[in-house]
Amino acid sequence: MTREVVLAARPQGVPQETDFELRETDDPELADGEVLVRNVFVSVDPYMRGRMTGVRTYVGPYEVGGSIDGGAVGRVVASKYDGLSEGDWVASMLGWRERGVADGERLRKLDPSLAPPSTALGVLGMTGFTAWVGLVRIAEVKEGETIYVSGAAGAVGSAAVQIAKLKGLRVIGSAGSDEKVEWLRSLGLEAFNYRTTPAKEALAEGIDVYFDNIGGEQLEAALTALRPFGRVAACGAISRYNDQRAEAGPRNLGFVVTKRLRVHGFIVSDHTAEFGDFMREVAPWVAKGQIECRETVVEGLENVPAAFTGLFHGHNTGKMLVRVGPD
Amino acid sequence: MTREVVLAARPQGVPQETDFELRETDDPELADGEVLVRNVFVSVDPYMRGRMTGVRTYVGPYEVGGSIDGGAVGRVVASKYDGLSEGDWVASMLGWRERGVADGERLRKLDPSLAPPSTALGVLGMTGFTAWVGLVRIAEVKEGETIYVSGAAGAVGSAAVQIAKLKGLRVIGSAGSDEKVEWLRSLGLEAFNYRTTPAKEALAEGIDVYFDNIGGEQLEAALTALRPFGRVAACGAISRYNDQRAEAGPRNLGFVVTKRLRVHGFIVSDHTAEFGDFMREVAPWVAKGQIECRETVVEGLENVPAAFTGLFHGHNTGKMLVRVGPD
Repeated sequence: MTREVVLAARPQGVPQETDFELRETDDPELADGEVLVRNVFVSVDPYMRGRMTGVRTYVGPYEVGGSIDGGAVGRVVASKYDGLSEGDWVASMLGWRERGVADGERLRKLDPSLAPPSTALGVLGMTGFTAWVGLVRIAEVKEGETIYVSGAAGAVGSAAVQIAKLKGLRVIGSAGSDEKVEWLRSLGLEAFNYRTTPAKEALAEGIDVYFDNIGGEQLEAALTALRPFGRVAACGAISRYNDQRAEAGPRNLGFVVTKRLRVHGFIVSDHTAEFGDFMREVAPWVAKGQIECRETVVEGLENVPAAFTGLFHGHNTGKMLVRVGPD
Repeated sequence: MTREVVLAARPQGVPQETDFELRETDDPELADGEVLVRNVFVSVDPYMRGRMTGVRTYVGPYEVGGSIDGGAVGRVVASKYDGLSEGDWVASMLGWRERGVADGERLRKLDPSLAPPSTALGVLGMTGFTAWVGLVRIAEVKEGETIYVSGAAGAVGSAAVQIAKLKGLRVIGSAGSDEKVEWLRSLGLEAFNYRTTPAKEALAEGIDVYFDNIGGEQLEAALTALRPFGRVAACGAISRYNDQRAEAGPRNLGFVVTKRLRVHGFIVSDHTAEFGDFMREVAPWVAKGQIECRETVVEGLENVPAAFTGLFHGHNTGKMLVRVGPD
């Protein structure tokens, strides 16, 4: 027997813990080529909110009563796949469960001597890769430019600000608490608390690139602050994910023409072929300690719903993870 | 003595004819390298509205009491510049006046045997070049794609729809009267009247590219209709140029992320180095009659203000010009 978290009801507005429930399931049989994995960490990510609404966007929706797949890191318990053996660390999409079976081809073997395995869900996983794709492939950042990153203390944001700084940009980040701002400053970055400092003031000197994790007012302020030929890497808009009706967009979209801005949305899963390029650039920075891999770790599968809903209340600094088992 | 139209007052909201006045001036002296030109056609263009507000955007503002420079086509009256002689046809930026002096280097000599000189203000001038830059350089259109062009019976729009069709796209255009829609259909294009048919319905099959001349509701409908990886060439937003306060933007900007859209503003004057590429592709189509160069021609310098204000009431089909003198 094992346990998983399933979707009990489609969230209305901000997700509640009661939208989820724990369920016991049997371990499935292993077929040839498959691997049984015991999860150690499961990932909770803002994009999962979209999959709970029942509308197909770029990934299919989660079903009520069904499992919630997503990023996870764990260890092999049993393997019928040649490339993996008992005890190996693997990254998977097994999601919010204690144990699960996956096609061995879809697992990424991790080397715990190079970086803590949990980083495969953070700065060396989808999170960091998202930051890198947005900076390098979408915004095409250049040394010496000024970038503004909203949600800069979050999982993607904290990777983006650190990678941008290592690439020689002037970096301004915003976050929703003084503690988060202090942490960003301790990394050598400029930072402000968007709840107490209007972004328009903080960005008054102008920016070349905006990495948008937030949308709404931050996007509007960035459009005003962007210099001619500025770019927006539109990664997400956590301020809007729980909207129950469509809210109006920024009042200053006219700047897109007059300043020749480029606003470009992206989804990291379109870029999997570039994962190797990302790892070659970013993994050495992590290995040398030049990127701080901050995590907020919640304990226990039963607390996955609380960790997930906490994303929308700013409960995480860095990557939000749930530990569901021992190393 | 000659006459020009000057800015009498900064327009508040929709421009009025009373925002302009006629003024008599002396012909200036010709210095070495300069040319005296008698205008035949002067151009009125929506972008000029922005220059009347007194705010510097990508070009400096017009001053109250000052001349209004802009596109014009005329004939050389006297020349102290080696490359031009009396009687030559030239395109200039001499603007809303009957006669003016320009640096010979800044004049483009026209060959009236290749195309009517007035096309140098339309499909073979800034207007057509804007359409081509938006399609080719900004949206990077590909044969077989579907494009939606708003303001399709306007100067830039009517060039954009015809160039797009010649490049092998499926083209849908919208305009604000049944007469304009009929004209677009006579060119072999799909077209609808946006005042009577909601764009969302007309675009329900989906589009790959949106060429935006209008902004506002048309942009919102296009964002809904765009397929994944769609592009918006943001050329202008005539529906918003006269706004006296900033209106909210589209309610569905979230599609930029989920559909990985690219919204890219542009200004044709950034692309002057590519004018030759444009002419090599488009001039032969005009010469062979494959592009219809529709013009709306108003007579007399004193009617320039009426022609200009008429742009904001949809008075033009194709390029709006004012004839201020005989050929």
